[in-house]
Amino acid sequence: MEFKINNECFYKAITEVNKAVSRKSPLPILECIKIVANSECLILVGSNADFFIEKVIPLFINGVKVLEVINTGCIVISAKYLGEIVKKLPQDIFVKVNEQQIVTIRSGEVSTNLKGFNSKEYPRLPHIDGTKHLEIPSIELNEMIKQTIFAVSKSGTRPVLTGVNMLFDKNRFTCVATNSHRLALRELAIESNINGSFIVPSANLNELSKLFNNGLGMIHIYLIESYIVFKSNNISLFSRLIEGNYPNVSGLFSAHYKTGIILDTIQFLQGIDRAYLFASEWRNNNVQLEIKDGNKIQISSNSLEIGEIVETQTIKKIVGETDLSISLDGNFLLDALKAVKEKEVKLSFSGPMRPVLIEPLENPSYIQLISPVRTY
Amino acid sequence: MEFKINNECFYKAITEVNKAVSRKSPLPILECIKIVANSECLILVGSNADFFIEKVIPLFINGVKVLEVINTGCIVISAKYLGEIVKKLPQDIFVKVNEQQIVTIRSGEVSTNLKGFNSKEYPRLPHIDGTKHLEIPSIELNEMIKQTIFAVSKSGTRPVLTGVNMLFDKNRFTCVATNSHRLALRELAIESNINGSFIVPSANLNELSKLFNNGLGMIHIYLIESYIVFKSNNISLFSRLIEGNYPNVSGLFSAHYKTGIILDTIQFLQGIDRAYLFASEWRNNNVQLEIKDGNKIQISSNSLEIGEIVETQTIKKIVGETDLSISLDGNFLLDALKAVKEKEVKLSFSGPMRPVLIEPLENPSYIQLISPVRTY
Repeated sequence: MEFKINNECFYKAITEVNKAVSRKSPLPILECIKIVANSECLILVGSNADFFIEKVIPLFINGVKVLEVINTGCIVISAKYLGEIVKKLPQDIFVKVNEQQIVTIRSGEVSTNLKGFNSKEYPRLPHIDGTKHLEIPSIELNEMIKQTIFAVSKSGTRPVLTGVNMLFDKNRFTCVATNSHRLALRELAIESNINGSFIVPSANLNELSKLFNNGLGMIHIYLIESYIVFKSNNISLFSRLIEGNYPNVSGLFSAHYKTGIILDTIQFLQGIDRAYLFASEWRNNNVQLEIKDGNKIQISSNSLEIGEIVETQTIKKIVGETDLSISLDGNFLLDALKAVKEKEVKLSFSGPMRPVLIEPLENPSYIQLISPVRTY
Repeated sequence: MEFKINNECFYKAITEVNKAVSRKSPLPILECIKIVANSECLILVGSNADFFIEKVIPLFINGVKVLEVINTGCIVISAKYLGEIVKKLPQDIFVKVNEQQIVTIRSGEVSTNLKGFNSKEYPRLPHIDGTKHLEIPSIELNEMIKQTIFAVSKSGTRPVLTGVNMLFDKNRFTCVATNSHRLALRELAIESNINGSFIVPSANLNELSKLFNNGLGMIHIYLIESYIVFKSNNISLFSRLIEGNYPNVSGLFSAHYKTGIILDTIQFLQGIDRAYLFASEWRNNNVQLEIKDGNKIQISSNSLEIGEIVETQTIKKIVGETDLSISLDGNFLLDALKAVKEKEVKLSFSGPMRPVLIEPLENPSYIQLISPVRTY
């Protein structure tokens, strides 16, 4: 194997596929990147066996020649060292692999030899057959992930809750995440021939939203046995699915709420952020909300040892009962409000011990629930 | 005590004095800031009992009124909470302390009560008498600290080596730091009536260079019993000195070197940075330097398990013997070269086991030494 490549382009690709590589693994090959040189492109693959990122570097990018393949072939190299070396090389990089799988990397006056591994031992990419498939704009997929992923469970006691549930049903795509104390649900109308419910590990979706964060183009989603694949022009992510049944959340939403209030999203977020200061010292991150004088909301928190913080904000509109006092986890409320892009947010209450419904005004596709905290 | 203050100006001052406050102390008062309201200014003091930062906020800054003192007085408040609250307050801040030492902080619709402490228990600032005193441009002092501080010892086995030695002698000011494997020495001609050798804790000098990093104005240095004081217009740092005798380093510099080479500083630094990649995996961070063909330097490192890296650079000028092979700690060499501002650097060698002298070309006021590493 032998090729010459533009250093910046090579470094970018290594960094991208590196996101799927294990930092520390009992199997050294899972700390490596696989490089395949074809006559018309270079393919890099990073993997920890459950998650794969594949990047294709063509011969030309925007009409500029970035790659020249002299001899085709395949090698597996330490992701850490390859990345650190290529990052520091001053100019075009020449890579050659000999029969003992020693990889020589040259650039200007710098020459490096790295030990390679046999590529036969590297995990194999699942095969895409293309029958179960849909397309979604990158910007929409990213937003759906960002608006739900924060609500997944951080503890591993119920593994299904550590992932985001992706539901494909009658031309509707839904993402749901919950840790059983809070929930975020986002819908999108979409055409697809996929049906079913799939649970995707949140760590992999995090990498996905970093890689596809430019918001350009379409993402193709494929479902193949035990994997979901997200594919753009030159980069593909293969994530193993979490096994198990995701809980049905549709029964959690109440049809009737006693009180509904509309608030300025940013102003309310800043108020919660201030009150959260003491809340974070206190058990369950309690922030108290109380309706005052029928048209104001009082946000407060206190810690016996340190002090207290209180502020009042004007409610834009109130519907139903004006008698309300409730304790919420300030951290959950902060996450929920940060995910709302709209200027106004509606909170609906059914009583001090019933979940609070949080919706952006004029956007029925995004709903969140937060369970109150017992204060006695 | 009662005053009204601009929120940004108050927050900046709190952040500055907070650098001297203990993060975690068995004495809660050492996690606090003292605030003194006089008729013509507000004084903030942060301290961990060995290090004090004092900041003065006048009534007007650049002709704009930033402070109004309604009632004079003094209070001690948790540095962490005061900082976090003031950071999040939207506008001018009104502070009032009642007889129970409850501090009420109000800004717009937000009201906070924090428990205060009696200011009598707060550590007292050492008194400046002003007899032993010198002045130095802020930019010069900062550079002297930056060019020496990295060389201090990180281990506490010899406490004197964890500080920077400041020597005042016959109109010359010298800073020295060493961990006994490497040394950095920087001199400056200066007028002073101070004589003697003082050891200043490096952690406090680190904070000093952050606080005085704008490079403007003069710094006044005072020496009072067991403290050194650095004072600018409105901020003063009081650092306790490290007790003990600093080793005399003048005998470490050899008068004769066998080989002297001149290199491009940046190019050499980048070469060491690349070679250091494998060096860091290897004991003592070894990087090998070898003179080749009488006019080239080969920089290399290797790790049996991973691979090797080799590069050659052209020597700008060579004096003396051209036969040289030496192993140095790559990390020490990187630090040394980063501290050199000049474009060209001179390295002088006396043999594979004698310290290497590193000097910027055309700047006799800055010299460094690095001891080689045994490779057998």
